[in-house]
Amino acid sequence: VSRGRLEAFSDGVIAILITIMVLDLRPPAGSGFGDLHPLLPKLLVYVLSFTFLAIYWVNHHHLMQVVERINGGVLWANTILLFSLSLVPAGTAWLGEHPRATAPVFVYGVMLLLCAISYYVLCLALLRVHDPASRLAVALGRDWKGKGSLVAYVVALPVAFVAPLVSMGLYIAVAITWLVPDRRIERVTGQDVVAPPEAD
Amino acid sequence: VSRGRLEAFSDGVIAILITIMVLDLRPPAGSGFGDLHPLLPKLLVYVLSFTFLAIYWVNHHHLMQVVERINGGVLWANTILLFSLSLVPAGTAWLGEHPRATAPVFVYGVMLLLCAISYYVLCLALLRVHDPASRLAVALGRDWKGKGSLVAYVVALPVAFVAPLVSMGLYIAVAITWLVPDRRIERVTGQDVVAPPEAD
Amino acid sequence: VSRGRLEAFSDGVIAILITIMVLDLRPPAGSGFGDLHPLLPKLLVYVLSFTFLAIYWVNHHHLMQVVERINGGVLWANTILLFSLSLVPAGTAWLGEHPRATAPVFVYGVMLLLCAISYYVLCLALLRVHDPASRLAVALGRDWKGKGSLVAYVVALPVAFVAPLVSMGLYIAVAITWLVPDRRIERVTGQDVVAPPEAD
Amino acid sequence: VSRGRLEAFSDGVIAILITIMVLDLRPPAGSGFGDLHPLLPKLLVYVLSFTFLAIYWVNHHHLMQVVERINGGVLWANTILLFSLSLVPAGTAWLGEHPRATAPVFVYGVMLLLCAISYYVLCLALLRVHDPASRLAVALGRDWKGKGSLVAYVVALPVAFVAPLVSMGLYIAVAITWLVPDRRIERVTGQDVVAPPEAD
Repeated sequence: VSRGRLEAFSDGVIAILITIMVLDLRPPAGSGFGDLHPLLPKLLVYVLSFTFLAIYWVNHHHLMQVVERINGGVLWANTILLFSLSLVPAGTAWLGEHPRATAPVFVYGVMLLLCAISYYVLCLALLRVHDPASRLAVALGRDWKGKGSLVAYVVALPVAFVAPLVSMGLYIAVAITWLVPDRRIERVTGQDVVAPPEAD
Repeated sequence: VSRGRLEAFSDGVIAILITIMVLDLRPPAGSGFGDLHPLLPKLLVYVLSFTFLAIYWVNHHHLMQVVERINGGVLWANTILLFSLSLVPAGTAWLGEHPRATAPVFVYGVMLLLCAISYYVLCLALLRVHDPASRLAVALGRDWKGKGSLVAYVVALPVAFVAPLVSMGLYIAVAITWLVPDRRIERVTGQDVVAPPEAD
Repeated sequence: VSRGRLEAFSDGVIAILITIMVLDLRPPAGSGFGDLHPLLPKLLVYVLSFTFLAIYWVNHHHLMQVVERINGGVLWANTILLFSLSLVPAGTAWLGEHPRATAPVFVYGVMLLLCAISYYVLCLALLRVHDPASRLAVALGRDWKGKGSLVAYVVALPVAFVAPLVSMGLYIAVAITWLVPDRRIERVTGQDVVAPPEAD
Repeated sequence: VSRGRLEAFSDGVIAILITIMVLDLRPPAGSGFGDLHPLLPKLLVYVLSFTFLAIYWVNHHHLMQVVERINGGVLWANTILLFSLSLVPAGTAWLGEHPRATAPVFVYGVMLLLCAISYYVLCLALLRVHDPASRLAVALGRDWKGKGSLVAYVVALPVAFVAPLVSMGLYIAVAITWLVPDRRIERVTGQDVVAPPEAD
């Protein structure tokens, strides 16, 4: 019940965030192919941010599948995660206009770090209301990938002052490691998520 | 059935409102850290409005959990609440640009007052179709926090003509009192909302 | 199953339409109360359009409660209704800037007429797959209110060339008649829609 | 379970995409009927894009009805489809301003091709986790219409350099062929989708 509505609200917010970023892909004034040229960095940054938000959606989806209990703390941890994710369109718009400048690359990294910390806090809030032997606790395990991402962001931030493109490379590398589906939870729920047609 | 769709529609509207506010966090023209400076008051007002909308979502969520009946009056009271909430992005955009001016602070307070009154009317509409011994009636109880918020807004409005920042402080104080989860309803539904994995 | 997703998609579209209209309530450049003055007609037109979209949502909600069958024709009739409703924000933005000019008032009326016709076509598409003795057919009955609204819009259109404010009055009058809950369907489903807390 | 949330997220994204396009139908500066004239091509392109997104929604809806299993690959194929669809508003905005110019017509075609390929990949990802005798495999069959659409887009792209309006005609022709409901899946699920009132 409660979990269903939490999922629905989170899905709604993430779906809106992932699509309003497209509002910054303004069509060029001219009508020639050359007029598209300045849009290219914006498009690439959009792809990166779309990927990050999609990763959060998929992970949130997997996480919620093994959740058994929710309390007020979980609701607020989830709200803070949604707030952090809501900064992504603004960060994307700035980075899309200055993809090689230190400040936008740094701010984009701070924003990714905030999202990662919020997600981590949500996991902690969930673990507090679950048994150490619960499917959730087993599925989360040691969370090497989550901790590795945090380290990568923390490294990328000072690097942005020297070589912003290296920081960008680190962000992209983190995204790629997450594109691999989360085996931890699939291990617990079974290889395929089965949704028989009569069960809807 | 009916309640589910009312929740879904309300969630959709609140999710959109909470995220379109981010469209006003336009990236600065320049690419330096200093260019972010004028964004700071906008960001703080955005945090405040995000918090208010999230509080309404959480309270609406808790309220609906104990609802047993819905009629046309409830539908319209809920619609008026959504209308009031829909004014939040406009009020936020104005206040974000002039966070110390009397008029935007006053209008923001009127908007918060409207939302609080609408929520109160929704509770009354629900109480009319519920038994005095129902879980809803017990959960709502005397509603000191709701009434206290109304008083705080009414006080903050004239204060905005003398000291707008004091009014802002009152708005923030109200938000903080609501961040504490609503024990009234948790008392009725049990400490944790249990959503067993097989029940979805 | 299918009906649930049709409702969810329709709710999503209507929720977005009803909220993106607020994006046109741009905050004034100045920070005084006088700067709000030009916003007033926009706000009133916004209230009218919000009310119309809310009426469509409530009626759609009531209608779907008695639907037993859906086919491809119903899906497309519903899509055409959503398309017609999607024109409301654009019509609202134009009318909000020129609330006494013939062309915006006329176009707003054409838009309302389109929505009403689409809703009527959706009802016909549903009746085609339902039995004349079905709850849907009984609930829809003679539909005097729907037909009366169509007549009011058709009258309002030529009137806009002579007295736009009279046309506006007609639009408002139609909205008011619909604010009364639809007894036809409540008669069939029972006075209160009961959603027991354990049934969600 | 999982399928339900995949549907809900996809519905949310498509509902937002289909409605934010309306944000580009900016009201004209003037208040006369003549001021609407330049909006006409924008409106027609909007109708075309609305139709395409609605077709994807209806087909996605039909497809999901026969899905029995989902895995990580399906989630990502679906995400790539949503990404492709998210480019539609930007392509629409550019084409709406230059409906007879080669570059916008070509880019619009590339965008439609991307959507079609993504949908095809999603079908392949689903077939990989379904039995050849499953309802899904039977329903998809040879997919002549899907393959024909791909061919039409591939033909339309070079044609845009010679006669952009012919390419536009091809896009419209493809849309019309899809407006006919997908008999392949209706054949499998039965002629009417029955949603009894007590089953919601």
